[in-house]
Amino acid sequence: MAKKKTKVNRPKAIQPRGFRDYFGVEVTERAEMLSAITEVYHRYGFDALETSAVETVEALGSFLPDVDRPNAGVFAWQDEDEAWMALRYDMTAPLARVYAQYRNDLPTPYRRYTVGPVWRNEKPGPGRFRQFYQCDADTVGTASMAADAEICAMLADTLEAVGIDRGDYIVRLNSREVLNGVMEAAGVLNPDDPDAHAEERGIVMRAIDKLDRLGPGGVRALLGAGRKDESGDFTDGAGLSDAQADLVMGFMEARGADAAATIAALRGLVGGSASGARGVDGLEEIAALLDAQGYGPDRILVDPSVVRGLGYYTGPVYEAELTFEIEDEKGRKQQFGSVAGGGRYDDLVKRFTGQEVPATGVSIGVDRLLAALRAKGRIGGTSVGPVVVTVMDRDRMGDYQAMVAELRNAGIRAEVYLGNPKNFGNQLKYADARGCPVAVIEGSDEKARGVVQIKDLALGARLAADMETHEDWKAQPAQMEIARSDLVAQVQAMIARAEG
Amino acid sequence: MAKKKTKVNRPKAIQPRGFRDYFGVEVTERAEMLSAITEVYHRYGFDALETSAVETVEALGSFLPDVDRPNAGVFAWQDEDEAWMALRYDMTAPLARVYAQYRNDLPTPYRRYTVGPVWRNEKPGPGRFRQFYQCDADTVGTASMAADAEICAMLADTLEAVGIDRGDYIVRLNSREVLNGVMEAAGVLNPDDPDAHAEERGIVMRAIDKLDRLGPGGVRALLGAGRKDESGDFTDGAGLSDAQADLVMGFMEARGADAAATIAALRGLVGGSASGARGVDGLEEIAALLDAQGYGPDRILVDPSVVRGLGYYTGPVYEAELTFEIEDEKGRKQQFGSVAGGGRYDDLVKRFTGQEVPATGVSIGVDRLLAALRAKGRIGGTSVGPVVVTVMDRDRMGDYQAMVAELRNAGIRAEVYLGNPKNFGNQLKYADARGCPVAVIEGSDEKARGVVQIKDLALGARLAADMETHEDWKAQPAQMEIARSDLVAQVQAMIARAEG
Repeated sequence: MAKKKTKVNRPKAIQPRGFRDYFGVEVTERAEMLSAITEVYHRYGFDALETSAVETVEALGSFLPDVDRPNAGVFAWQDEDEAWMALRYDMTAPLARVYAQYRNDLPTPYRRYTVGPVWRNEKPGPGRFRQFYQCDADTVGTASMAADAEICAMLADTLEAVGIDRGDYIVRLNSREVLNGVMEAAGVLNPDDPDAHAEERGIVMRAIDKLDRLGPGGVRALLGAGRKDESGDFTDGAGLSDAQADLVMGFMEARGADAAATIAALRGLVGGSASGARGVDGLEEIAALLDAQGYGPDRILVDPSVVRGLGYYTGPVYEAELTFEIEDEKGRKQQFGSVAGGGRYDDLVKRFTGQEVPATGVSIGVDRLLAALRAKGRIGGTSVGPVVVTVMDRDRMGDYQAMVAELRNAGIRAEVYLGNPKNFGNQLKYADARGCPVAVIEGSDEKARGVVQIKDLALGARLAADMETHEDWKAQPAQMEIARSDLVAQVQAMIARAEG
Repeated sequence: MAKKKTKVNRPKAIQPRGFRDYFGVEVTERAEMLSAITEVYHRYGFDALETSAVETVEALGSFLPDVDRPNAGVFAWQDEDEAWMALRYDMTAPLARVYAQYRNDLPTPYRRYTVGPVWRNEKPGPGRFRQFYQCDADTVGTASMAADAEICAMLADTLEAVGIDRGDYIVRLNSREVLNGVMEAAGVLNPDDPDAHAEERGIVMRAIDKLDRLGPGGVRALLGAGRKDESGDFTDGAGLSDAQADLVMGFMEARGADAAATIAALRGLVGGSASGARGVDGLEEIAALLDAQGYGPDRILVDPSVVRGLGYYTGPVYEAELTFEIEDEKGRKQQFGSVAGGGRYDDLVKRFTGQEVPATGVSIGVDRLLAALRAKGRIGGTSVGPVVVTVMDRDRMGDYQAMVAELRNAGIRAEVYLGNPKNFGNQLKYADARGCPVAVIEGSDEKARGVVQIKDLALGARLAADMETHEDWKAQPAQMEIARSDLVAQVQAMIARAEG
């Protein structure tokens, strides 16, 4: 019979651009880390909140927190009733919506933590994905600096809880109000006419956000006449005089020998600015509270050179940085850098209710922190597979299933080989691909004698890799015959030996 | 100064229709349940997989697994490069994409579990949300009935692991191939001309899917001439003769005194159909494997009256039902019903690669299972708040923060009250709203004497509610004065007393 050929249009088996899949330990290690983080957040008195991935576009608003990416967008679509919906781009916008919606029922202050993916409609790049995890904690409804101090302390505790040693991280603390005070002292901010000099302040803010990348010289150029980059492109500067620029540079370089020295330097810089004085007082209060709780400058440091996010926040700003070195793709050593940031923002629910509600909070970049732990070798071990009961006689699946049931009931991860059992070599290849520690073998001969063979696959692999250990092999054979009735105990012992 | 009034268009603080928020224990209880489920899946040898929420529309395809809702849609939008993307509507479509994409690198069989939200663009209704959790386990790449048997066993173990007692659930097992055999015997399916009678078979399939709702009489009518419902609307029937309809009804009512009797009855019904014989052999094999592992008919039962999803699956079909009664909103008792379902489907990756890859798997409806545990009173306790250190003297925040640091370092959930401390009553109201077990009070007088007051808030609430316990109160005062240096030990003791 002649068959009519039809062209088949098959879908491509590929994820959308900028999205990725996570397998095995990548998933479980993240789950363990999130569990460790939320355990600390919970101990600090924060309650869990989980909102849906989807919000109305109206509730999300159109701004993104990260000034580096002002054009970053959201994934949005229209519902059947024409209303626009979108995937959340961070956890702060949904918190604002929730607090405005339930404010009469929630305790004040409202302390909540949340964890989950967020989505950014951005051009994907290497290592830059359009879905990633955030783990946030925020305190809403208090202007107390004790709330900011507490979040800095919690951030330090959290990093240690997930396996970053003390000395391998630093939480840096800065203040937007102090920067405002410095700009006031420099004459580019007038509290009585807040719109004046807005353009200059925008350039100043973007310039100091680039301190990491351009260094002090580059920032200084942008504060003044402008800067020509390596490609020859010219960026206009803020046009500050040398004296004005000195003040701003002085702010970034104000870190002294200890918190008291830094705070004194900042107090000098802000001159008579009320905002500046408030900011310096705040930093002083936070430093004193942290000192009372035993968090020294080896963990949390007042450091005005932390400038990221200053444009977004309204009060204290904090950032956790990992200080150990890793090698980049070209083998150059460099510090790992920022894994978490946060600060005070007082306009949280104003968009919804018109009321100013003070809030402060932190967001941990979960995927970056996981990458850091992998770079330190703290996680990222290969996955340990299940004990595999091989199939020697396909009519006796019941016997093999009974074995795995016994092993599982004893808490041992185990499975029967469920592929085609014809080729025994394929069964061992499967066990190898899964990283299985032990294979169990029971042919008809073993069955008749009431025994099974158990094979230490990890030891077998080591023996195969290193012929010198032949003596060890005799002492610790990779395969042994045991009584069927001893299956659970002997497999347990073999796994323990492999782990020890 | 006259201010120009501008109309402010404030966004509404509300989630999109059909979405909801989860607070406190709602979040943590789900996290604990998911952890218990995935622990069992892992012990059975399944590996974790986490795909992104977003897939290409092309990869998702346009079909949904649940035949009850053929018009159910997805949330979709166009990327900048015009490609259509959508939120996943289940976990099976992404698994198909992943298996097709990585099939040369994945072990065969590939056993994976996954957990996360899925989204359905449906009309929301009471208790019916557009985002909900699924927790799936699938074995891809094996036709062995041992894979199906294993998933039934795992489903039973999982329900017990999350707190459903044996006797409160049943896993029912059925077979699409047996139904095909019955339809062949009834003359509405011809293996040599598979397209013939497709319309009748569609009506038969939809009719038996309605057994729960219409009862045997209603299904019988739909198999024959048709059925007029209470509103007077008429639904066309499949037009089967009485003898044909008897066969189909016989299938649904084939459950006998034990698995052997049921299987014998089914063998009689399928006559000479090869598909039917294969299906009956499969059920027999699964029943024998489950028996070898000790899963009796009190946990897993061959029962052809389970008909949900028969249209979607291609081989064995299984469904977990909770058998205890709960009261519906009108106070009528009814069985809780289905919380998980699954089966064998052999066209998983065919859309992508053209190859048939056999697979079988289960999906647990996490939110329904949580509702069941709440109905049984197994979870859903009120949230226990942190120990609250009250603020008597706002200049001594450092002292109070030092107290919570001590408590937290001892593993006790604790916080300083961060609201306005002026009104002490508000501090206790806050502690009450949070469900705090203990309040710590240290005024200047206590500070001078080196003591603190600790207040058992749970006991205080019980005392306030019940005046007869005055004697108890004297024996167990709700408030006591302790040495400041005993803070951690005494708070620990008070919490232990409250829990005991």
